[in-house]
Amino acid sequence: MQFYDFRLAPSPTKVRIFLAEKNLEIPTVIVNLRKFEQQSAEFLAKVPSATLPALELDDGTVLVESHAICRYFEELHPEPNLMGEGAKEQALVLMWHDMATLEGYLGIQEVYRNGQEYFKGRALAGPQGYEQIEALVDRGRKRVEVFFDKLDRRLGESPYVALDRFTYADIAAYVYQGFAKRAVGTDPAGGRDNLTRWSEMIAARPAVNTATS
Amino acid sequence: MQFYDFRLAPSPTKVRIFLAEKNLEIPTVIVNLRKFEQQSAEFLAKVPSATLPALELDDGTVLVESHAICRYFEELHPEPNLMGEGAKEQALVLMWHDMATLEGYLGIQEVYRNGQEYFKGRALAGPQGYEQIEALVDRGRKRVEVFFDKLDRRLGESPYVALDRFTYADIAAYVYQGFAKRAVGTDPAGGRDNLTRWSEMIAARPAVNTATS
Repeated sequence: MQFYDFRLAPSPTKVRIFLAEKNLEIPTVIVNLRKFEQQSAEFLAKVPSATLPALELDDGTVLVESHAICRYFEELHPEPNLMGEGAKEQALVLMWHDMATLEGYLGIQEVYRNGQEYFKGRALAGPQGYEQIEALVDRGRKRVEVFFDKLDRRLGESPYVALDRFTYADIAAYVYQGFAKRAVGTDPAGGRDNLTRWSEMIAARPAVNTATS
Repeated sequence: MQFYDFRLAPSPTKVRIFLAEKNLEIPTVIVNLRKFEQQSAEFLAKVPSATLPALELDDGTVLVESHAICRYFEELHPEPNLMGEGAKEQALVLMWHDMATLEGYLGIQEVYRNGQEYFKGRALAGPQGYEQIEALVDRGRKRVEVFFDKLDRRLGESPYVALDRFTYADIAAYVYQGFAKRAVGTDPAGGRDNLTRWSEMIAARPAVNTATS
C-alpha cells in the first residue's frame, strides 16, 4: 500500500491526521504540487485525476478523494472510531463533514484559486485548465464567513462538530480552518469564541500536532 | 420520522430512489421549492439550512445532506447493500459518489443557477443571497462535459459506476444525468455509448421507475 501526500495541501492533511489518530503508519510518497509533480506522466498514469491524496492498494486499485480514503481505513481499523457508531452518529458525522466541505472548503478554494497569479488557468484542481473568475474571490469570502458563523453557533451547543466526542468532522473543519487562515488571510477563529475554544482543543491533540507540524 | 421532499429537485430524488431500492416507505411532507416554502418561518425553524432533502427523527434531530440521510437508512436497513461491503467496496462507492457530486453536480448547478432570471440573487442554495456570476454558466458547461466523458470512460470498463453491481454511486450519477438534461438542455448520454447503455439499464429498474415517475 502506498499513500501519496503533500503536507501543505488541505485534503491530504485530513488523511494524515486521520491516520495519526488511528496510530497507523503507511508508506508515503511526497508529490510536490509546487513543482507540478501531479502533472507528470508517471503520476497521471496512476492517478488520472491529478489530485491528492491518493492511496494505491496492493491489488493496484487507486483510491482518490480524502473521504473515501479515510472510510477505507475506518473499515480496516475501526478503533478508535472516528466516523460514528450506529445510524444516527454516522449520519451526523457525514452531514457535518459534507456541510464543512461544500460550504466552507469550496468557499476557501474560490478565494484561493481565483485570486493568485500562481493559479492562472488552473482555477479548479485536476488535469483540465479552467480560467480564473475574479468575482469568485468576493463570493468565496462571503461563503467562508457564513460557514464559520454556522460552525461557531454549532460549537456553542456541542463540544465537538458532529458528536460529543472527536470525529472525522472535527478533522475536516480544523483543516479547513487552517486552510482559510492561509488562503483568505484571516483566522476564522478571530472574534468567534466557540471556534477559538474548540480549535485550541483540537490543536492540542498529540496526533493532530504530529500530523501538521 | 418524517422525510421532507420535492420531486423535481435532484438531491431529494437521490434519497427517494435509495428508499425505493430498499423497499422503505417513510412519511413524507412535500416542500414546494417553486413556491419558496423552504424559506417559510415554519420550515426554517426545523431546517435552518433551507435545503432539501431533510429527515426529522423521532427524537427531534434533523438530518440534512442527501448522503448523510442515505447513510442513516443504509445502517438501519442494510439489505440490499447499496454502499459497499468491506473497506475497498465502501471506499469505491464513496469515491465515485464524491467525484460525481464535486465534478458533475456542482458543474450542472453552475449552469442552472447562474443562467436563469428565476435564480437571480439565489445563485447558491440556502438562506443567504448570492448574486449570479455569468461566467459560471460557461465554466459549468465545460465541467459537465469533462465529468460525463470521465463517467463514460468508466462505464466502458465497469458495468456500474463504482462496483460490478448497482450502488448508491449509480443513484447519484443517474440523478445528475437527468438533472443535466433538464438544466443544461442536452442529454449527456448523447454520443456517449457506455453512458447510454448504463442509463437505460438504470432507468429500467422498478424502484428507479417508481421513485422518478
